[in-house]
Amino acid sequence: MGLIKNGRVLFNDIPKGYPEPGKTTVYDTNQTIDVENVPLDGGFLLKTLELSIDPYMRRRMRHPEKKSYSAPFAIGQPLTGHGVGVVVRSEFEGVKAGDHLYGIFEHVEYCIRKDLSGLHVIENKFKLPWSTFIGVAGMPGKTAYMAWKEYSKAKKGETVFVTSGAAGRLVIQLAKLDGLKVIASAGSDEKIQFLKELGADVAFKYKTKDTAEVLEKEGPIDIYWDNVGGATLDAALEAAAINARFIECGMIAGYNVGGQPIKNLINVISKSLSIHGFIVSRLEPKYDDEFYAVIPAKVASGEIQHREDVYDGLGKVGDVMLAVQQGLNKAKAVVHVADD
Amino acid sequence: MGLIKNGRVLFNDIPKGYPEPGKTTVYDTNQTIDVENVPLDGGFLLKTLELSIDPYMRRRMRHPEKKSYSAPFAIGQPLTGHGVGVVVRSEFEGVKAGDHLYGIFEHVEYCIRKDLSGLHVIENKFKLPWSTFIGVAGMPGKTAYMAWKEYSKAKKGETVFVTSGAAGRLVIQLAKLDGLKVIASAGSDEKIQFLKELGADVAFKYKTKDTAEVLEKEGPIDIYWDNVGGATLDAALEAAAINARFIECGMIAGYNVGGQPIKNLINVISKSLSIHGFIVSRLEPKYDDEFYAVIPAKVASGEIQHREDVYDGLGKVGDVMLAVQQGLNKAKAVVHVADD
Repeated sequence: MGLIKNGRVLFNDIPKGYPEPGKTTVYDTNQTIDVENVPLDGGFLLKTLELSIDPYMRRRMRHPEKKSYSAPFAIGQPLTGHGVGVVVRSEFEGVKAGDHLYGIFEHVEYCIRKDLSGLHVIENKFKLPWSTFIGVAGMPGKTAYMAWKEYSKAKKGETVFVTSGAAGRLVIQLAKLDGLKVIASAGSDEKIQFLKELGADVAFKYKTKDTAEVLEKEGPIDIYWDNVGGATLDAALEAAAINARFIECGMIAGYNVGGQPIKNLINVISKSLSIHGFIVSRLEPKYDDEFYAVIPAKVASGEIQHREDVYDGLGKVGDVMLAVQQGLNKAKAVVHVADD
Repeated sequence: MGLIKNGRVLFNDIPKGYPEPGKTTVYDTNQTIDVENVPLDGGFLLKTLELSIDPYMRRRMRHPEKKSYSAPFAIGQPLTGHGVGVVVRSEFEGVKAGDHLYGIFEHVEYCIRKDLSGLHVIENKFKLPWSTFIGVAGMPGKTAYMAWKEYSKAKKGETVFVTSGAAGRLVIQLAKLDGLKVIASAGSDEKIQFLKELGADVAFKYKTKDTAEVLEKEGPIDIYWDNVGGATLDAALEAAAINARFIECGMIAGYNVGGQPIKNLINVISKSLSIHGFIVSRLEPKYDDEFYAVIPAKVASGEIQHREDVYDGLGKVGDVMLAVQQGLNKAKAVVHVADD
């Protein structure tokens, strides 16, 4: 093969509002790599297959002085995020050529890694498509499964309101398996249709229906799965039942506008609410084995459904980042970088 | 005695901002009662001794259509709140003349009650002053004790930030007994001095020191006891440690201004915080026996300290309501209505 292009997506500038493809991120094709001969120095050569584009990534596009749970992206360096790849060559004891890895990937076509930090080998017993492991069987799936187990205290007959997203769509299915009434919202007719197919008892488009009115009619809610924050969280606070549990997965409404204030937090006191924020990586040590034992099998059997919105080529990352922030992706956003 | 005045404090108008004595509440002395001869019709005659004036009462001064945990005060009717009284005469099987009762009292000098709903007999083994049972051994004390037991998950060596108030001052002492570092705030030098005497490691006046700066220096905080909400809650969210617990007791900063928006709630996610709102009446069934077994004894022995700011006469209620909202009371606000 000799020298071939090794494309990279670089963080180039901190966005003021929405990310701007070509400005806040740039696709750089100046680097090359000799896949067969590049020295590994005891490491292994990893080829990126699939990359996950998730809402929280916008929060990493920030000034490095702003503290948060995930490190800020570094200007001039590749983005990083969840991905799946295949080992091309290896001098590292833990992996061999042909192994597939899941974990945190640089947004590059090829890279040399010295160890497995942030990565683990995927055992794909059910021969699922590799992208599954960054979706329903990856970080968004873990987010839904682990937080639902840890915080929902779901009881049959209760009502949950789910603001959808990749994790939310699994939450809907877990809630139906637990015997709850599910109210779910999304931003397009196509997504609403899918929410109904997943079992949502009430599914509405938040862009054309007033969330507070829907919850007034269909609530009160015992559990709120929050992916949105802002006015939607305020509506959920108003519609909460006594002793309701709020699971805070994301607050995308505030990510591109410098945060959104919450006005109805007094309900936390008046209704004895519990609000649980979490980062899935802190729940993984407790639930990872259980998750991989349960979810891939249910996906393979069709008991759990999922959908992906696949964009082709690393050069699409910037556009997909923007689409995800605007809610324009049709399902779990995946960038297909290369075939296996 | 014949007919004597039976003073009442009536709710007269919904305040726009702070309550206005003489306008939003009025002291009415037009009613009379013949204590010795008034017919009881199977009930009992209760004489009010002590009334508790608490911050949350401002939230009951609202339009009846606004839903909340506690019923709104009814225009033209007496205020109600926690109190202690003595039974003067009884035809009711559960109580006899001379019994002292704790619970929800109308703000009147005398009233006839038909049953014990919302009331129970006080066993005062340690001969504590009756006002103790509306303070550290009453609702504010229960608020502190029960929520600390239920939600704090306090571990020795952790740091708690307490915004004081009657409940907060007991929380400080419970936290020191559990081996925590205590940061506490209050609104006057006199209160700060008392917080130090109670064992607070850091005590500061929020009116002259910036809460965020103090917490930046003395934190991060593992537990936040919130009596304030608003900007103080925002500062606590910024200063929270990973996995911190927030106990939401009150949000007085918003009570007189129509609520205060919260800007930093995103920390709930990034730091895996849990926020627990509660109403003490929902914890009482679980903890009431334990509370009365533990707290009065510790108060009698001096192991737990408390202070009261006693105002003399039912006519003072309106002024005290305002003082409590403005934070001008020096300690737990008590209206002494009559001697035993």
